[in-house]
Amino acid sequence: MRIFSGIQPTGTKHLGNYVGAIRQYVEGQDRGDPAIYCIVDLHAVTVPYEPAQLRERVLDTTATLIAAGLDPERCVLFRQGDVTEHAELSWLLTSVTAVGELNRMHQFRDKSAAQRELVSAGLLFYPVLQAADVLLYRADEVPVGEDQREHLELMRDVARRFNARFGEDILVVPEHRIPTVGARIMDLQEPTRKMSTTGGSVEGTVYVLDEPKAIEKKVRRAVTDAEDPFTIRRDPKGKPGVTNLIDLTAVARGVSPDEVIASLEGARGYGDLKLAAAEAITTMLAPVRERYAELRADEAGLEAILEAGAERARALARPVLADVREAMGVGARAR
Amino acid sequence: MRIFSGIQPTGTKHLGNYVGAIRQYVEGQDRGDPAIYCIVDLHAVTVPYEPAQLRERVLDTTATLIAAGLDPERCVLFRQGDVTEHAELSWLLTSVTAVGELNRMHQFRDKSAAQRELVSAGLLFYPVLQAADVLLYRADEVPVGEDQREHLELMRDVARRFNARFGEDILVVPEHRIPTVGARIMDLQEPTRKMSTTGGSVEGTVYVLDEPKAIEKKVRRAVTDAEDPFTIRRDPKGKPGVTNLIDLTAVARGVSPDEVIASLEGARGYGDLKLAAAEAITTMLAPVRERYAELRADEAGLEAILEAGAERARALARPVLADVREAMGVGARAR
Repeated sequence: MRIFSGIQPTGTKHLGNYVGAIRQYVEGQDRGDPAIYCIVDLHAVTVPYEPAQLRERVLDTTATLIAAGLDPERCVLFRQGDVTEHAELSWLLTSVTAVGELNRMHQFRDKSAAQRELVSAGLLFYPVLQAADVLLYRADEVPVGEDQREHLELMRDVARRFNARFGEDILVVPEHRIPTVGARIMDLQEPTRKMSTTGGSVEGTVYVLDEPKAIEKKVRRAVTDAEDPFTIRRDPKGKPGVTNLIDLTAVARGVSPDEVIASLEGARGYGDLKLAAAEAITTMLAPVRERYAELRADEAGLEAILEAGAERARALARPVLADVREAMGVGARAR
Repeated sequence: MRIFSGIQPTGTKHLGNYVGAIRQYVEGQDRGDPAIYCIVDLHAVTVPYEPAQLRERVLDTTATLIAAGLDPERCVLFRQGDVTEHAELSWLLTSVTAVGELNRMHQFRDKSAAQRELVSAGLLFYPVLQAADVLLYRADEVPVGEDQREHLELMRDVARRFNARFGEDILVVPEHRIPTVGARIMDLQEPTRKMSTTGGSVEGTVYVLDEPKAIEKKVRRAVTDAEDPFTIRRDPKGKPGVTNLIDLTAVARGVSPDEVIASLEGARGYGDLKLAAAEAITTMLAPVRERYAELRADEAGLEAILEAGAERARALARPVLADVREAMGVGARAR
C-alpha cells in the first residue's frame, strides 16, 4: 500500500502537528510501500510569502521530520518543487476538473476572502495540484485532516473521471484516512480550540523546537478551571483545560489517560498535573530538538537528502505520467 | 529579437491560416533570433477532443508547416507537450495571476458557454499556460490575431507583476504584433466573414491540402454579386465577394490588387476573375501539398524533427525557468 502525504513548509511545527501528523508519518514509513512524504513548496506560492524564507522553511521542515524519526532510507522524503512531474500532471488534470468544483471549495472561499490584494489563480487551482501530488504516485492512502476532506473528494472524482475518459485503471482512486490521535490537542490558553499555527495563541501553543524552559512556562500558565475542590478527571466539555493536560501527558508518555490520572493520585493541585505534563512533553521533545539542531546546521546534507528523495520520487512518478501522457495523446510517445 | 508563436494542432489549415499566419512564420524565421514555433498540444486538452487523433494532428501540422517553408534548422519548431518547462512555469505564474482576470476573459466566457458537459479548469487556466509559453523564452514579439489581444494583455500584466514581485528584468514583457496580411481572407460563400475552421462553410473554405480540382470547384462557386454590367474592382462593403477574389489572387501572385485588376482588363465576366484566382491559389499551394505528402509519410522523421526542436527549446527555456525558480525560492538551488 502506497501512502502519500503533503507537508507544508512552515518552519515551526507545534505539538498538535507532532502528535497528529509527524508521529503518524514515522509510523507510516514501515507500513507504506513506500510512504511518500512531500514538502509542498509549490503550494506555498499561492498566498503572499517571502521568497527568501521559503527555502529556509523547507530545510527547517526537513530537519524537523528527520529529527522526529523519519528515515530518508525507509521512506521517500522530497521537495515538490524538485519534481517537475507534479506541475505537469496538474496541468493535464485540468482537463477533467470542472471550474465549478474549484469555485465551490470552502478552503478557496475562505482563503480568497482573507486576501487583501490579489486572489491568485494558484489559490483556485490549489486542489488540482494537490490531486496531482497524490495521483502521480498511484497512492492508495492519504492521511490528512478532516479539513482536507473536500479536496480529497475532489481528487477522487478527478481520478474517476480521468479513468472514465481516458482509460480504466490508469489512475488509482485514493482513500482518505483521517488521523485520530492528536486531533484533540488543544491550545493551552483556549482549550476549546485546537492547537494551531494560524489563529492560536502564542502562549497556548507548544512548538516542537521550544526550549524546555519555554515549554514549562507555557504549561505552567495553561488555563484549567476553578472547580473546588480541584479534581483531575477527563471531562472535555466541562473541564477542557484539565482534559487537555491529561491527554497531552498520556500521549507524551505513551500511556492511557486513565494511567495518567492514576499516577496523579495524591496531587495537591493542578500544579502537579502541569508539572507532569511539562515533564512528559519535554522528555518527548528534547531529543527531537537536539537532533534538529545538529541536522539543521548541515544545509548541504539536508539538500543532498532532498535530492536523493526527489530522485526516488521521480522514478515512481515517471511511469505514471508516461501512462497519462500516452492515454491523453500529448507529447511524444514514450520510447 | 525573439519571436514566439503557438500553433494549434488542427489537421486542416486553410488559406486564411496559410496567408495570415504560416507565411508569416516563414518570414519570421529569418527575422527572429530565434523564431520559436510551438505546436500547442497541451492547450488542445482543454476542450473535448479525441486522444487518438491528437498526435496525428500534431504530425499533420508539423508536416504542413515544413511543407510551407519552415526550416527546422533555421527556427525552433517543437511540440509543447515535449517540454515540461511550460507546465511548470504555468503553475508558478498562477502566483501572480488573478482569478478575476481569468474569469473575465472573453474567450473563456465564449468557450465555456459552448460546453455542454464539463467546463474544464483548463479552459479557465488556458491564458496562464499561454503566458508561460511566451515568457519561458523571454520572447519579445508575439504575432497573433486580434482575437488574442486580451490574452496578450494578460500575459504582459503577469510578466510585469512577476518582475515587480520577484525581481526586475526576470521576465520580458512581450509586444503584440497583429499580422496585417491575411486578416482579410474571407469565406468564399459568405464573403463578409473571415475564412475560419470553425463556423465557416466547407464550400467557402479553401484548405492548404485541397486538391487543385477541389480548389477550382470552390473558387468557381464563390459568391460574387449581380452588378450590371459586372465590374472587377475593390469595394469591400459593396462588393465583398469580388474584392475577396481580387485580394486572394493578389496575395497568391505576390502582387498588388491593382495589378490583378489591370491584368483582368477585357475580362468577359466574373468567371475570368475566378479562373485567375483559382490558378493563382493552385500554383501557390500545389508545391506545399506535394511536399506535405512526402513529409507526412515519414512519421519517424517528423518525430525526430520535433524531438530535435524540443531539445533546442529546452536549452532556451531552462535558464529562464531556473531564474524564475531562484527568484521565487522554489525547488533546489541551481548548481
